[in-house]
Amino acid sequence: MADDVTGAEALVRAAAHSGAEVCFANPGTTEMPLVAALDRVPGVRAVLGLHENVCTGAADGYARITGTAALTLLHLGPGLANGLANLHNARRANTPVVNIVGDHTSWHLPYEAPLTSDIAALAATVGTVHTVTGRASIGEATRTAIDDAHRLLGVSTVIVPADHQQHRAPEQPAKPASAPSRAPVGGDTVKNAAARLRTAGSRGVLLLGGNALSREGQVAAGRIAAKTGLTLYSETFPARAERGGGLPAIDRLPYFPETAAAVLREAPAVVVAGAEDPVAYFGYEGVPSMLTRPGTLVRLARPHEDAEEALLELADLLGAVAPAGPGPAFEPPGPDEPLSGRTVGQVVASCLPEHAIVSVEGGTSGYPFYTASASSVGHTVLTNTGGAIGQGLPCALGAAIAAPDRPVVALQSDGSGLYTAQALWTMAREQTDVTVLVAANHTYQVLRTELSRHGNDDFGAQAAALTSLADPRVDWVALAGAFGVPAFRATCVAELRHTFTDAVTSGGPHLIEMAL
Amino acid sequence: MADDVTGAEALVRAAAHSGAEVCFANPGTTEMPLVAALDRVPGVRAVLGLHENVCTGAADGYARITGTAALTLLHLGPGLANGLANLHNARRANTPVVNIVGDHTSWHLPYEAPLTSDIAALAATVGTVHTVTGRASIGEATRTAIDDAHRLLGVSTVIVPADHQQHRAPEQPAKPASAPSRAPVGGDTVKNAAARLRTAGSRGVLLLGGNALSREGQVAAGRIAAKTGLTLYSETFPARAERGGGLPAIDRLPYFPETAAAVLREAPAVVVAGAEDPVAYFGYEGVPSMLTRPGTLVRLARPHEDAEEALLELADLLGAVAPAGPGPAFEPPGPDEPLSGRTVGQVVASCLPEHAIVSVEGGTSGYPFYTASASSVGHTVLTNTGGAIGQGLPCALGAAIAAPDRPVVALQSDGSGLYTAQALWTMAREQTDVTVLVAANHTYQVLRTELSRHGNDDFGAQAAALTSLADPRVDWVALAGAFGVPAFRATCVAELRHTFTDAVTSGGPHLIEMAL
Repeated sequence: MADDVTGAEALVRAAAHSGAEVCFANPGTTEMPLVAALDRVPGVRAVLGLHENVCTGAADGYARITGTAALTLLHLGPGLANGLANLHNARRANTPVVNIVGDHTSWHLPYEAPLTSDIAALAATVGTVHTVTGRASIGEATRTAIDDAHRLLGVSTVIVPADHQQHRAPEQPAKPASAPSRAPVGGDTVKNAAARLRTAGSRGVLLLGGNALSREGQVAAGRIAAKTGLTLYSETFPARAERGGGLPAIDRLPYFPETAAAVLREAPAVVVAGAEDPVAYFGYEGVPSMLTRPGTLVRLARPHEDAEEALLELADLLGAVAPAGPGPAFEPPGPDEPLSGRTVGQVVASCLPEHAIVSVEGGTSGYPFYTASASSVGHTVLTNTGGAIGQGLPCALGAAIAAPDRPVVALQSDGSGLYTAQALWTMAREQTDVTVLVAANHTYQVLRTELSRHGNDDFGAQAAALTSLADPRVDWVALAGAFGVPAFRATCVAELRHTFTDAVTSGGPHLIEMAL
Repeated sequence: MADDVTGAEALVRAAAHSGAEVCFANPGTTEMPLVAALDRVPGVRAVLGLHENVCTGAADGYARITGTAALTLLHLGPGLANGLANLHNARRANTPVVNIVGDHTSWHLPYEAPLTSDIAALAATVGTVHTVTGRASIGEATRTAIDDAHRLLGVSTVIVPADHQQHRAPEQPAKPASAPSRAPVGGDTVKNAAARLRTAGSRGVLLLGGNALSREGQVAAGRIAAKTGLTLYSETFPARAERGGGLPAIDRLPYFPETAAAVLREAPAVVVAGAEDPVAYFGYEGVPSMLTRPGTLVRLARPHEDAEEALLELADLLGAVAPAGPGPAFEPPGPDEPLSGRTVGQVVASCLPEHAIVSVEGGTSGYPFYTASASSVGHTVLTNTGGAIGQGLPCALGAAIAAPDRPVVALQSDGSGLYTAQALWTMAREQTDVTVLVAANHTYQVLRTELSRHGNDDFGAQAAALTSLADPRVDWVALAGAFGVPAFRATCVAELRHTFTDAVTSGGPHLIEMAL
């Protein structure tokens, strides 16, 4: 039956009917009919962010856990622009995200009022764009955008002028968008990979990404490794990887291209399952962009394809039976040891609660944690896929909204954390079970490393200042308190172990500033 | 003499030679040669921001005061995206800003590494774009970008792949870019405006923007008003307006279009000097976008033209002699009165230090302050021209870097202030003389007003939550402390008067949370 509803109500209805349950929002004047509709149409929960990059990063984190798109609600071009960095990360994570962006009333657009800008051009840099040109097409545009996001595993944007949101018209119940799905891998592709791995034997490499990093995918990969003796790698920055709980110990492909190339270039076959082709993160003089030797790359499954199923078939084809084990546990650090990347990684890995979700942003403690976490209890890791910093805290927030029954840990470097510290406020408001661990070295350490790589070991005064966060030192305990999150400081292994265990067992948001 | 220098050094040289003295920076790996060059080539001071929107907003504020472009240094597409909102505001302020954005090493671009994105498409939404395609063209591209910014009074962006920054080559000293200038207004245009104003008499309106809001421009406008009896308005959101110190009391054109149209539609001639055409900020059903009646709009000077000079000529043509005075001072509020938009505006206006620069963002205390400030000591007002919120604190920072000898006051609403609170850290680091006054009503009040205008007086639970910042309340004193800025709380007129006077007389950054 066709109901008489506003365009905004038609949009929320179509979204709810297509399975959208959450909308991470920072609306403005041109989205007020949508704000009103979120109350009039049941089914979509609104979560306010104090900055749009919190909203888009949370939508990314949410969808990494649920597999289905959340909405964002953003105000015109500037609102979308503010959220683009984390949409870039979502694009690189192959995460479905659907942005709803208001625009000026359609007849007002030619007047170049102050907030007018090219919204479609901004949106096109991260995904598909659907501009609503009349009240009648709102429901269908919304359904198509969600369909795009689920089908292409990416970002889509609906631009809705305010007048079309306001007008009432009869609306048929929309056909729901399709559920997310991954394209199957053809049998010949699997057979070819099997033949290449048989020939390569123990010199083969299997590089996992996408849904190959599910529990089932990794078990299948472990069976293959046990059978042929090949080396397993995870992509360097997985969108989502299951980890620990008896899974095989799989290293991430090293970040720096020389090191990564060194482990790949001896392999006669590098089979890629669900990951992008292994290329250098940045281009450095004298280091090739492509990390494999010509003729050795074998694409089993692209990031949007069903790599997990392909690995299961591959393991069966190779006659692989038992998976490799997780490898030995590490020696835990002593209670009085100072905090460093290594000791932080080990404490967090050893104290992790069962089924935790860990959002990792930043290298200082991120890399050591990944190494140590192979022998942890079972958990899920989310990382910064696109390199646009300010992703870790919003992603943790979104994951916590997606899985309120699971503890969430954000292992966060300080420089990147300062980009979107506003996420702490929404964690407090929604009382999400997130424990934020800030590795506070008061430096953009990665940039100091890069300056040295560029041959600038003797920093000038300006280079030193541009890579230092020490003057003044940000007080993370005060910052968290300002946003309503209880916070503590830890200066040694024993203090971190104690405060971290307390935080994850007491529920609700907490922050621990780790003095490195 | 041609020197052998890196591309990065050539860029900094060309910029310094064209008058750029400051670079608001948040660099990454692809900008490391530029960071090193900032130390090797003298003349450009680097100022670190913890988020790119701090850098771009500061560059806008800086150029509003100096009239010449500052540089920003931003990391790839995501870094530029993060700064786009305040570049949008700079575009609407007709401010010269030059962005330097690193890109991947040119031969690495085809590999779609994680941080690859369409930087040029993002940059084109706010201004002109210059992509460096080889080492040889770096100096010239930089000069042309600065020239663009000064000539068009707008934003320009130079995209520089990392390899071109690194390579050494002989470099001729670059020809400097032209200084900023405004196109002169033709004599016939001035004569036409004079004729229209003579006919309109006391029913005429003169709307000022751009450099018509200089001290000289306003004095000329005051002479015209005294002569013909017309009504003077400033544009609603001026980029920069001189104010107080005996200048005529000029109201801002009202924000809501019904009110603005009411004051314009009776005028037989609305002469616009340096402002955009008066159009509604947003389009509302039943309210025309154009606020003047057909045939009444007279364009004396466009925003990029020399409106000040045109007003001087116009005043002479009309035989105007003495300017109107500033009007009566207001009755100051009593010491025990609670803080409200009105009392805050009056206290700030009456305690303002001579020659202060006041960055105003947000309506709660912003509008009342403007009204009260007509009888203040002489000062300069900067407002949010483009409506992308998070502009006030970065703009105040940039103004303070531009004019270290002038006290700066940021009169800031809380919702918008939370977008770029990271600016506080740079204020502390650079020990800028900025006093931040936060009107803490813990609400997106403008959105509640807009919801009512859309006929939604009875907010649902989600609408109420999406417009409230009260749960939890942000503790601005703790937030400022976290970033190294001494902070206080004021709850009544006497406390505000006392803390504000202390802050502006003691130098360095301060923040006062005003409990509204």
